[in-house]
Amino acid sequence: MTSPAPGLKRYERIILGVDPGTNLMGYGLLGITAGKPVMIAMGVIQLSKFESHYMRLHRIYTRIVDICAQYLPDEMAIEAPFFGKNVQSMLKLGRAQGVAMAAALSREVPITEYEPRKIKLSITGNGGASKEQVREMLRRTLNIAVEDLTPQLDASDALAAALCHFYQSSKPEIPTGPKSWKDFIARNPGRVKSGL
Amino acid sequence: MTSPAPGLKRYERIILGVDPGTNLMGYGLLGITAGKPVMIAMGVIQLSKFESHYMRLHRIYTRIVDICAQYLPDEMAIEAPFFGKNVQSMLKLGRAQGVAMAAALSREVPITEYEPRKIKLSITGNGGASKEQVREMLRRTLNIAVEDLTPQLDASDALAAALCHFYQSSKPEIPTGPKSWKDFIARNPGRVKSGL
Repeated sequence: MTSPAPGLKRYERIILGVDPGTNLMGYGLLGITAGKPVMIAMGVIQLSKFESHYMRLHRIYTRIVDICAQYLPDEMAIEAPFFGKNVQSMLKLGRAQGVAMAAALSREVPITEYEPRKIKLSITGNGGASKEQVREMLRRTLNIAVEDLTPQLDASDALAAALCHFYQSSKPEIPTGPKSWKDFIARNPGRVKSGL
Repeated sequence: MTSPAPGLKRYERIILGVDPGTNLMGYGLLGITAGKPVMIAMGVIQLSKFESHYMRLHRIYTRIVDICAQYLPDEMAIEAPFFGKNVQSMLKLGRAQGVAMAAALSREVPITEYEPRKIKLSITGNGGASKEQVREMLRRTLNIAVEDLTPQLDASDALAAALCHFYQSSKPEIPTGPKSWKDFIARNPGRVKSGL
């Protein structure tokens, strides 16, 4: 049985973000302290090493249950595309999502899902931003040290889902923010280094 | 905590069959005694009364965990269509399947999935049989009293998945059987009443 990580009591609220996939599942934990979000942890669940589809699903289940036991999240935000390439890939994705949801529900953690476009818009002000842009904006917004940033984009996507949920649930209105990445750069010349 | 049902020790093996859906989920329990299959229980999990998608998924999870605690199945067989109408319905179906699978995996119950056509072929000898034909064949094969037969076809489909798994796992070769429902009737005049 996993014990809760020390120091969690300093947070008013903890949000688990997940980005379920069938090869790699990203997760990110966001703590809210004095109304401000900070990154507690981020990482990926490696699934490609398991040949069996069920072993992968089992791994998702046990790791999410474990993460819930370790970080005691109050809520889960999940990146959930509604449109996919084909019915078979959507069935597989649905299963991965269902298993992750069941793991959270088994710990009585409520779930909110967000479309990728909504997450990107919420984090960068541009619904069409690249995953790299989302990661860079997260790093700056949450002031994450480079060595603490999990390189896989699945992990930053998951943390972005958690931050998006924080924005959505702490503001009565949808934040207006900059309308595009270009617009963001124009409005915030000091926050973006040229040549990125 | 649910206690195991009495009398389960008489079975060499117990197979849980499930037919996951988003409005109704069917389940059926098959016990094997002296190499013969018998119906232990069948039923449906009502989901349409819950408005929230998550409440439905939670209900699937808790009921399957409960059924596993009550009947101690050794294996789970799941009816799993691979082709669906559209990506959105497949995503929803995938989630329901994923949650049911996670519930079984959380109890360390291994899973096998079967396409609907395979189940129908295995039970009736006709891959294109109707759900009513599958139910009627199940009733006769397992000698189920009419009052013990759950009327919903989701429940008989689930029990059919369990019986299909029993056939598949107890025979080294795929059973040849009759090639069609008509063929079955021709071969077994005494087992089918006219005017059904």
